[in-house]
Amino acid sequence: MADKKDNRLLEEITPRDVDFAQWYTDIVKKAELADYSGIKGCMVVRPYGCALWENIHNALDARFKELGHENVMMPMFIPESLLNKEKDHVEGFAPEVAWVTRGGSEELQEPICVRPTSETLFCDHYSRTVQSYRDLPKLYNQWCSVVRWEKTTRPFLRTTEFFWQEGHTIHETPEEAMEETLRMLDVYADFCRDRLAIPVLKGQKTDKEKFAGAVSTFTIEAMMHDGKALQSGTSHYFGDGFSRAFDVTFADRNNKLAYPHQTSWGMSTRIIGAIIMVHGDDRGLVLPPMIAPVQVAIVPVASHKEGVLDAARALAAKLKAAGIRVTVDEREASPGWKFAEHEMRGVPLRIEIGPRDIENGVCMAAKRNGGDKFTIANDDSLAESVKKVLTDVQSELYAAALENLNSHIYEATDLETFKDIAENKPGFIKAMLCENHAHECEDKLKEVAGVTSRCIPFEGEPIADTCIVCGKKAKNLVYFGKAY
Amino acid sequence: MADKKDNRLLEEITPRDVDFAQWYTDIVKKAELADYSGIKGCMVVRPYGCALWENIHNALDARFKELGHENVMMPMFIPESLLNKEKDHVEGFAPEVAWVTRGGSEELQEPICVRPTSETLFCDHYSRTVQSYRDLPKLYNQWCSVVRWEKTTRPFLRTTEFFWQEGHTIHETPEEAMEETLRMLDVYADFCRDRLAIPVLKGQKTDKEKFAGAVSTFTIEAMMHDGKALQSGTSHYFGDGFSRAFDVTFADRNNKLAYPHQTSWGMSTRIIGAIIMVHGDDRGLVLPPMIAPVQVAIVPVASHKEGVLDAARALAAKLKAAGIRVTVDEREASPGWKFAEHEMRGVPLRIEIGPRDIENGVCMAAKRNGGDKFTIANDDSLAESVKKVLTDVQSELYAAALENLNSHIYEATDLETFKDIAENKPGFIKAMLCENHAHECEDKLKEVAGVTSRCIPFEGEPIADTCIVCGKKAKNLVYFGKAY
Repeated sequence: MADKKDNRLLEEITPRDVDFAQWYTDIVKKAELADYSGIKGCMVVRPYGCALWENIHNALDARFKELGHENVMMPMFIPESLLNKEKDHVEGFAPEVAWVTRGGSEELQEPICVRPTSETLFCDHYSRTVQSYRDLPKLYNQWCSVVRWEKTTRPFLRTTEFFWQEGHTIHETPEEAMEETLRMLDVYADFCRDRLAIPVLKGQKTDKEKFAGAVSTFTIEAMMHDGKALQSGTSHYFGDGFSRAFDVTFADRNNKLAYPHQTSWGMSTRIIGAIIMVHGDDRGLVLPPMIAPVQVAIVPVASHKEGVLDAARALAAKLKAAGIRVTVDEREASPGWKFAEHEMRGVPLRIEIGPRDIENGVCMAAKRNGGDKFTIANDDSLAESVKKVLTDVQSELYAAALENLNSHIYEATDLETFKDIAENKPGFIKAMLCENHAHECEDKLKEVAGVTSRCIPFEGEPIADTCIVCGKKAKNLVYFGKAY
Repeated sequence: MADKKDNRLLEEITPRDVDFAQWYTDIVKKAELADYSGIKGCMVVRPYGCALWENIHNALDARFKELGHENVMMPMFIPESLLNKEKDHVEGFAPEVAWVTRGGSEELQEPICVRPTSETLFCDHYSRTVQSYRDLPKLYNQWCSVVRWEKTTRPFLRTTEFFWQEGHTIHETPEEAMEETLRMLDVYADFCRDRLAIPVLKGQKTDKEKFAGAVSTFTIEAMMHDGKALQSGTSHYFGDGFSRAFDVTFADRNNKLAYPHQTSWGMSTRIIGAIIMVHGDDRGLVLPPMIAPVQVAIVPVASHKEGVLDAARALAAKLKAAGIRVTVDEREASPGWKFAEHEMRGVPLRIEIGPRDIENGVCMAAKRNGGDKFTIANDDSLAESVKKVLTDVQSELYAAALENLNSHIYEATDLETFKDIAENKPGFIKAMLCENHAHECEDKLKEVAGVTSRCIPFEGEPIADTCIVCGKKAKNLVYFGKAY
């Protein structure tokens, strides 16, 4: 393996500050997260990327189930007639769906689309299975892939097919549905903070940016290292709009026919793009220990010397027994090459052990996120010490990301300042908007400054009384930014 | 809930021996495993069916990983040109694939099909990522759904879209690849025996029945209660045919360019159909404890009486602490209705607890697979006693299935006897076949007796020297049967 990989190592990755986009692509390729496929815009998620997604899947799935959600598996196809039932929804999605028009040798009488999202399928199922308020709420989720025919794509960030979970719930009352909508937004925000070490802004999308068919859309927005925003998870409140369109009814407590109130919420593989762009550096990927497929990589030094390999394996056994995800790198390659390899793959902690360390009853450790090498006593305290270091790495990554977020939020109360910040300062811009029903003011900001509204934050004081564009009475404080 | 569900209960399910097909459909519906969808032949896998599939997924996935396999996620689409690269493969699958011809508003220049299976996608990926013998073997697997445009469909048994895992591996030598092929067949057979309580016949498919593009296909065949066969898992050896077609090469140990040898193997949601048809009875589903989403259902009797609910919950807590999957049925409904409900859903063990049981420090238990009610002491030995009962149920189900299999295997050495058995005795028929390159003899048996060859068994002595059809020298002992 050594020779081949060494060659690969010779190609440096593009420095982050020279070309952020190329740096991102280099990491996806060299950390072996994903590969391009024969289908434009569709990616192959390779074992390392898949292991990362499985950790995300397992953590979220466990949380969903704690909250009473059940998984289902819906068909991947939607008949055109079903997609057309909710007007706003079909208008939003029809332009970007893939159409199946032939099955085997026969032309289909009605074209069917590959699901871009599954509200219509869930509603169709609810309409057949829900009868009484006693059947409510239905708290469903599914893990699957969906397809949106994208013009320009990038691995994880925007792909024609992407993998996600989509939760779909229906409830007796609007209040319950809204509670669920916000509860799941919190689940996403907490997950990003606690597992991914990514701080997010929580808020509501403006009417212009809300989900096709939703009454209101809530979002968590993360800031990438380059100051751009990544919408990292969304939760939608539908009221009873879909229920009416799909004739989902139930007998309420007064035995009257009523329409249930609905939510949906999703997080996708694009969150892997966020992990890369929030934590990564010029040496490659940097993974938060809580989510890393490999938390500790043990590299034997002078591994040909007697006892070194055994000592490395014994180390690994101790850590594994303590529930740490650890690997011993026994490949034929120089320690230096292995160091670079594990750095490229973002392994949070590297441990080296060689003859002298064995004599001294210690091992050498290096945190992926920086700092000098340090020694760890190789005794009964080993596992605890390593866990402590991993916890430190996790909080250090979060602190750094939070610092990056907070230091790139600006305010503007006039258009000139707004444009100047948008041109010269990467990050988010806070500004006031009027009621803005037809979105003119929002459109104007995109036109003159190339930014989109990210959210109306849950927290944040007004910074002016008037709309930054039209000067009319201000309604909301809004975060703007360039976005992936 | 009571009233509504009681209504549902009033509809009896069709007795198994009156109409096996209708009985099957009734169980799928009333045990709430799956629902029909708006797309012909596509099913909605409901929460209970999904929980069952998740248990199957988790058990198999853990075993695959123990054996060094890694999960990946391939695109769901295959360009027509890629599907066409391996001649036999495309001939086998082209007639039954769904074609996407439009993306968004644009007509595609090249139609793409929704994967019916992913050999072509894996080969395409291997051709880009494998270079040296040091990169081998690649032991990949993926969990996904695939689409085959079926004319007649039935939930789980044959659906246009079905869920499965597909393993795809490439190896340095033919020997290694064949070893892998047979290893994975054993993984399936052991899984069926140990987790699903389903005995299977292991063997090789005849040339006529092998997978499109494979050198040889191996299969496990289970016998349903009605004597019909269900192909429950297959493992294929491809030699280097696909490698050559897709130009997958590697530098071997002599630094010569070589073609790797390939396998693929899969098990799908149709195995849920096998669980239903092997173990189910006239009261509904019967689930083996090892795979059951709920292993024990606790039904409080006279639950309005003081202390009963608390006692039931305490029982559940004890069992849960011992790692048993348990639920307390606290719904507003009569115990009798709840008994029927949990029987319909195949819960292996029901435990009742009422005021008198509490006084006596016991609870009443009933095994789903039959026998009288019995008492279990509600003391420190409770969890152990329950585990013991669950183990018994698991082996009783296996013993019953094995008895059904063994008592429905027949032999024929002449065509008349063969036809007579095929017409009058449900089950498998053993017969000798000649070399039979063009499959005429095999075709003949299908024509005259309506059966297909299931497999050439790994174990089994010849029962004659001549082919049962043409009288030429016999080559193989073959199992025949009607199949799902």
